[in-house]
Amino acid sequence: MSSYTVRFLPDNLETTVQEGENLLQAAARAGIPLKASCGGRGTCGRCRMILKEGEVTQLQKGKLTPEQLAAGYVLACQSIPAGPVVVEVPAESRLAEHRVLLAEERAGEELLPAGFDPLFKKVALELPPPDLEDSRDDAGRLLDTLEKTTGMDDALFNLETLSNLPAVLREGQWRVTASLADGKGYTEIVRVEPGRRAEKYYGLAVDIGTTTVVVELVDLAGGRTVGVKGRYNKQAVYGDDVISRIIYAVETPGGRREMQRAAVDTINELITALTAETGVESKDIHAVVCAGNTTMTHLFLGIDPAYIRMEPYTPAVNSLPPVRAAELGLMVSPGALVHCLPSIASYVGGDIMAGARLIEIDQAEELTLFIDVGTNGEMVLGNKDWLLACACSAGPAFEGGGIRHGMRAMAGAIEHVQIDPRTGEVHYQTVDGAKPLGICGSGLIDLMAVLRDAGIIDRTGQFLSRPELPRLREGDEGPEYVLAWAHESGNEQDITISEADVKNLIRAKGAVFAGIRTMLRMVDLPVEAIERVIVAGGFGRYINIRDAIAIGLFPDLPVERYSYIGNSSLKGARLALLSRRVRDGVEELARKVTYLELSVGNTFMDEFVSALFLPHTDLNLFPSLINAA
Amino acid sequence: MSSYTVRFLPDNLETTVQEGENLLQAAARAGIPLKASCGGRGTCGRCRMILKEGEVTQLQKGKLTPEQLAAGYVLACQSIPAGPVVVEVPAESRLAEHRVLLAEERAGEELLPAGFDPLFKKVALELPPPDLEDSRDDAGRLLDTLEKTTGMDDALFNLETLSNLPAVLREGQWRVTASLADGKGYTEIVRVEPGRRAEKYYGLAVDIGTTTVVVELVDLAGGRTVGVKGRYNKQAVYGDDVISRIIYAVETPGGRREMQRAAVDTINELITALTAETGVESKDIHAVVCAGNTTMTHLFLGIDPAYIRMEPYTPAVNSLPPVRAAELGLMVSPGALVHCLPSIASYVGGDIMAGARLIEIDQAEELTLFIDVGTNGEMVLGNKDWLLACACSAGPAFEGGGIRHGMRAMAGAIEHVQIDPRTGEVHYQTVDGAKPLGICGSGLIDLMAVLRDAGIIDRTGQFLSRPELPRLREGDEGPEYVLAWAHESGNEQDITISEADVKNLIRAKGAVFAGIRTMLRMVDLPVEAIERVIVAGGFGRYINIRDAIAIGLFPDLPVERYSYIGNSSLKGARLALLSRRVRDGVEELARKVTYLELSVGNTFMDEFVSALFLPHTDLNLFPSLINAA
Repeated sequence: MSSYTVRFLPDNLETTVQEGENLLQAAARAGIPLKASCGGRGTCGRCRMILKEGEVTQLQKGKLTPEQLAAGYVLACQSIPAGPVVVEVPAESRLAEHRVLLAEERAGEELLPAGFDPLFKKVALELPPPDLEDSRDDAGRLLDTLEKTTGMDDALFNLETLSNLPAVLREGQWRVTASLADGKGYTEIVRVEPGRRAEKYYGLAVDIGTTTVVVELVDLAGGRTVGVKGRYNKQAVYGDDVISRIIYAVETPGGRREMQRAAVDTINELITALTAETGVESKDIHAVVCAGNTTMTHLFLGIDPAYIRMEPYTPAVNSLPPVRAAELGLMVSPGALVHCLPSIASYVGGDIMAGARLIEIDQAEELTLFIDVGTNGEMVLGNKDWLLACACSAGPAFEGGGIRHGMRAMAGAIEHVQIDPRTGEVHYQTVDGAKPLGICGSGLIDLMAVLRDAGIIDRTGQFLSRPELPRLREGDEGPEYVLAWAHESGNEQDITISEADVKNLIRAKGAVFAGIRTMLRMVDLPVEAIERVIVAGGFGRYINIRDAIAIGLFPDLPVERYSYIGNSSLKGARLALLSRRVRDGVEELARKVTYLELSVGNTFMDEFVSALFLPHTDLNLFPSLINAA
Repeated sequence: MSSYTVRFLPDNLETTVQEGENLLQAAARAGIPLKASCGGRGTCGRCRMILKEGEVTQLQKGKLTPEQLAAGYVLACQSIPAGPVVVEVPAESRLAEHRVLLAEERAGEELLPAGFDPLFKKVALELPPPDLEDSRDDAGRLLDTLEKTTGMDDALFNLETLSNLPAVLREGQWRVTASLADGKGYTEIVRVEPGRRAEKYYGLAVDIGTTTVVVELVDLAGGRTVGVKGRYNKQAVYGDDVISRIIYAVETPGGRREMQRAAVDTINELITALTAETGVESKDIHAVVCAGNTTMTHLFLGIDPAYIRMEPYTPAVNSLPPVRAAELGLMVSPGALVHCLPSIASYVGGDIMAGARLIEIDQAEELTLFIDVGTNGEMVLGNKDWLLACACSAGPAFEGGGIRHGMRAMAGAIEHVQIDPRTGEVHYQTVDGAKPLGICGSGLIDLMAVLRDAGIIDRTGQFLSRPELPRLREGDEGPEYVLAWAHESGNEQDITISEADVKNLIRAKGAVFAGIRTMLRMVDLPVEAIERVIVAGGFGRYINIRDAIAIGLFPDLPVERYSYIGNSSLKGARLALLSRRVRDGVEELARKVTYLELSVGNTFMDEFVSALFLPHTDLNLFPSLINAA
C-alpha cells in the first residue's frame, strides 16, 4: 500500500495520506478544518482547494465553475492523491480554526467559541444621568450600570481611570466605552472613553515551547485569529533542553535575566512580524495568555528555576499571578495583563494543562489518556471523576537526540520507512522529499517496527546476524543498519541506525509505556479501560499509531480510539484568552489533578524494566500483535 | 460656680473643670485616657501627673514617694484645681490611647485593640520541607502553611517575591518571615525573608482635614502609637474652604496636580518630623490609612473634584481602591498601600465614616446621633437597624468665618463668656490666657446664649435698645456689643459682635438643627428619641453643651446623653489601620447609610426657617429652657 505526502499552503503543513484517502481527510489530519456542509459527498462545493503540484484522481467535480476548473480548483472531498501533492487552501474554504470549540452561531457562518468572554473587552455603557434624587458617585454609577448590563460584579477601578472619570462621563453624555481586563479574581476597569468606541482590540495566545515559540494574534471582539507565527526559541543558544537552560540561568551571573530577555525577545519578534503583516498596532494588544512547560514559564517570568532539576523537583510556583506586560518587556499595551497557565509539577506544565482543558478531560465521561510525547512523555489520565498526571523522562530520542543520525522533523528527515523482509532493502520518505539527512521521531518509530518485522532485530533490540543482508554491517559502535548510502544522502554520509540507537529508543518508548501503566495501576485499571487517547504536540502529528503500538510505545487499543489534537498548548492558550471560564477552568483542572512522581513509591521501575522489550515482556498486553503474528 | 482651665502637657490640650472636678475627670474630657486601676479612689497611684503651674487641692497623696512629691507629682484623681493649672502627664501614666477599643489583655497591662489585625504585618512561618512524596511548589507550600498558621486564604504573591522565593526558603531552612499587606479583598505577600525577622514595622493613620492634617505613626506589631504630629494643610494657600480648593484645582492649568502635591507634601513633612523624632525609618512604614472629607480625598489622590460643588453634587468616587505610596509620592515604603476611607456623598466623607465606625453606630442598640460641626454640619443618625446621613451647609461661622471678630480656637481666642445681666459687663476667658484677639466657636455659642439671657438680643437675634449698657453701641453695620476694649485686646481693637454676626450664627445653628430634625422626620421620630449624641471634631471639644442647647444648635436632651469623641477621623483611621475588620467595616457601614440630600424633596427648608430663632420658633422642642425660664 503506497502513501503520499500532502503539503498545504499557505500554512506549509504536511501530512501523509494512505492510498485511497482524500484531501479532506488529509486536511483534517493536518489540523486544517474545512467547510464541508455536505459531509464530504461532493455536493456543497465548499471544500475547494487549488492543486499546485502533483496529481489527484478526481471522483467528481461537483459545483466547480469552468473558471475555477481552469484555475486548478479541485474539491478536497473528491480528490485522491495519486502521488505527493501540494495544494493551496483558500481562506473561503476554511472553517474558523476553533471549530471544536464553537457553540453559538452568529451572522450565518461567523462562529464564536462557547462561553466567549475574552480576558480583555470593551463594553459600551449607557449610564442614567445623575440628579438630586440620584447623586451616586460617578464610579458607583458606572459599576452599577456595568453590573446591570453585563452581570459583572467584580470590577475595580484603577486610580488613573478614576481620576478623569467625571469629565469622560460628561463628555460622552453618560454614554461611554469601558475597557475591562480580567485580573484573575477581579476585573480591572482599565479605561473609560466617551461615546461608543469601535476600535478593534486584540490579544495574544503564546505557546512558549523549549524549542519553538508560537504566537497567535486574536481579534478579541470577534474571537477570530488574525495571524499566527512561530520561530525558534532564542533561549536555544543557551542549550537545547530545559536542564541546560536551568543550569545556565542558575549558574551564570545574570543568567536568569538573560534567559528571561531571550524568551521575551522571541515573542517580541513574533509580535513585530505579526503586527507588520496584519497592520494591527501593538498598543492595541491588551491581553496575553501564555502556555509553556514549568521551566519555560519560570524563565519567561524571571523566576528562579534552580530546584526544578534537583530532587525532590519542586517548582518555585505553579499557579501564577497575572503580570503587567511592561514589567516583562513585552511589546504590547504596557498595562496589558499577561496570564501564564498553571503548572502542576516541575515536569507537568501549563502547556499540558492547556491541552487537558482543551480536550475537557475533566468533564469527560470516557476514561481518557492525554499524551504529549516530546523530551518527556507528559500524560494526563482520567475523566470527570478523577485525574492523574505524570511525566516520564523519555529522553530526547524521539526528537532525534542521543541517536547518531537522529534529527528533528525538518526537510531531509526520514519520516517513514519500509523494509523488504527478504532483501532487507529499504524504502523511505523524507520531509519535503529532500535528500535524507537523518531520521526524525516518526521515522524512528517506523524503523523499529519494520526492523523487528523484518527480523533484523530481536525483541530486546539486539541485531541478529544476517550476513546476507548488505545493509546490515558492523560499525564503530557495534552492529548497524544502513538506511541511506552516502551517495544518495544530502550530507554524503551513510545514514545508519545502530544497536545502541535502538536500545536508546527502547528505553524511551519503555518509559512512556511504563508511565501509562503506572497510572493505570494506581487506579487498578487494565489498559483496555482507556476509552480514548488524545495525542498532542508537533511530534504526535506524524506518528503512525500502528507502528507506535507495534513497538510498545502506545497501548494496544483499537486505532479509532486514537486522535490527534495538534498544538494543544497554543489552542488551549487561545481558548483561555477568549474565555474567562476556560482560563478559570484551567486553574481548577490543575488543582484537581493528582501528580504522580514516578521516581518514588510506585511500580514505575518494575513497569519500565518490563517495557524494555519490543513491544513488551508481557505480550498479553498487546493482543492485536499476537493475533496479527 | 467657678470653672478653671486645665492645660495638659506635652499634648498641649486644654479643657475646663467645674468647681469640685478633679484632674482625672479633666483628662478624660480632654481625651487623655489615664491608668486608674483603682477607679479613681486614690489607692493605685497610677494616675500621677506633675503640676507645672497653678494650684490644686489634694484630697490624699496615695502611694506617691517623697521624691515624687518633691518633683511636684500629684494624683490626678485626688487633685482638684483651685484655679487655672498646667500639668504634665508622664508617659507611664497614660493608657494606650485607643482605650475604648481595647478588648484583650496581653502581658499584664499591655493592651491591644479588639480584632487586632493590621493592614500590614509580618508573620513567621515554618514550612514542612519538601520530599519526593510532597513536592508541592514552593509558593503553594508557603500559601498552605500561611493558611494553616493564620487562617488566611486570600494571599497572593507578586512577581518579585515569587522570583526569588526558592532561594529564600532554603536559606531560611524553611523558616521564613512573610510580609503581608491587605489589598482590600486580597492579601499581598509583599516579601518573604529567611528566618525570623524581628524588625519593627509601622503604619500611618492620617486625618486629612481641610485646615489641619494630622499624622499618627503606629507600631503595627504592637498596635501602639509612637508619635502624632499635625500641621496646617499646605493646600490652604489655594483657599480656606473646599469650594475654593476645588475651583483652583479645576480652573487652574495643572491645579489638580498642584493640589495633590500640596496634600502629599504636608503629609511628607509630618512623616519627616515623626521619623526624625522617633528614629523610625520611613522605609519601614508599610501601610497608610487616610480619612478626609470627600474633597480632600479627591485632591489627595488627584481625582477630578469638579462636580462635587455643582448640582447635583456627585463625587467622582466614594469607595476607593488602595493606591501604591510611590504613585502618590508619599515618603514611606514605595510599595506600601494607601487606603482612603470611603465617602458616601460629596459632603459626607471618609472622615465622617471613620467616626461613625469608631463609635460603632451601625451596631448600636440606642438611637445615636453622631455630629461633626465644622464648616458643614455632618451628621449620621441611626443604630444597628438603619442609618441616615446628611450635611447641612452651616457655613464657617462656628469656625470664625463670616464673623467680623471671629477666629479659630488659637491663643487669644475668646472661648468662654459670661455677662452680668444687670450691668451688661462681661467676663471672658481666652485660649492660653492670652490677650483677646477675637472669638472662636465655643465663645460664639456662649456669647449668643448669654446675650439672650442678659436680654441684649431677642429671640430673632435682634439687638434690643438698652442705652444704659455702655458695651452696647451702634457700629458701622448696626448695633454691636463690645466684648473687649482696644486697650485690653491683643490687637488694640475693640472686639465686638454685631447684629449681623448674630444673624449669621443663627443661620448656622439653624441649619444644623434643621438637618437633625429633617433626618428625624424621615423616620418619623421626635427629638427625644435620640438616646445619645456623640460630638466629634476639634470644635466640638470646647462646646458648652448647655449653651449649645440654649441657642438651639443641639437638641434639648439631658446633658448626660452627650459625649465628646475627639478627632474621630484620625481615631477611626488608626483603628482601620490596626484592624482589617474595621477597615472592611467602614466600607460596609458606608454602603448601609442612606444619604439625605437636604436641598431637595424633604422638609429641610421649612425646618431651617423654623430654626432661625433662639432657640426655635417651637419652644416645645426645648422644654428644659421653658422650665428653667
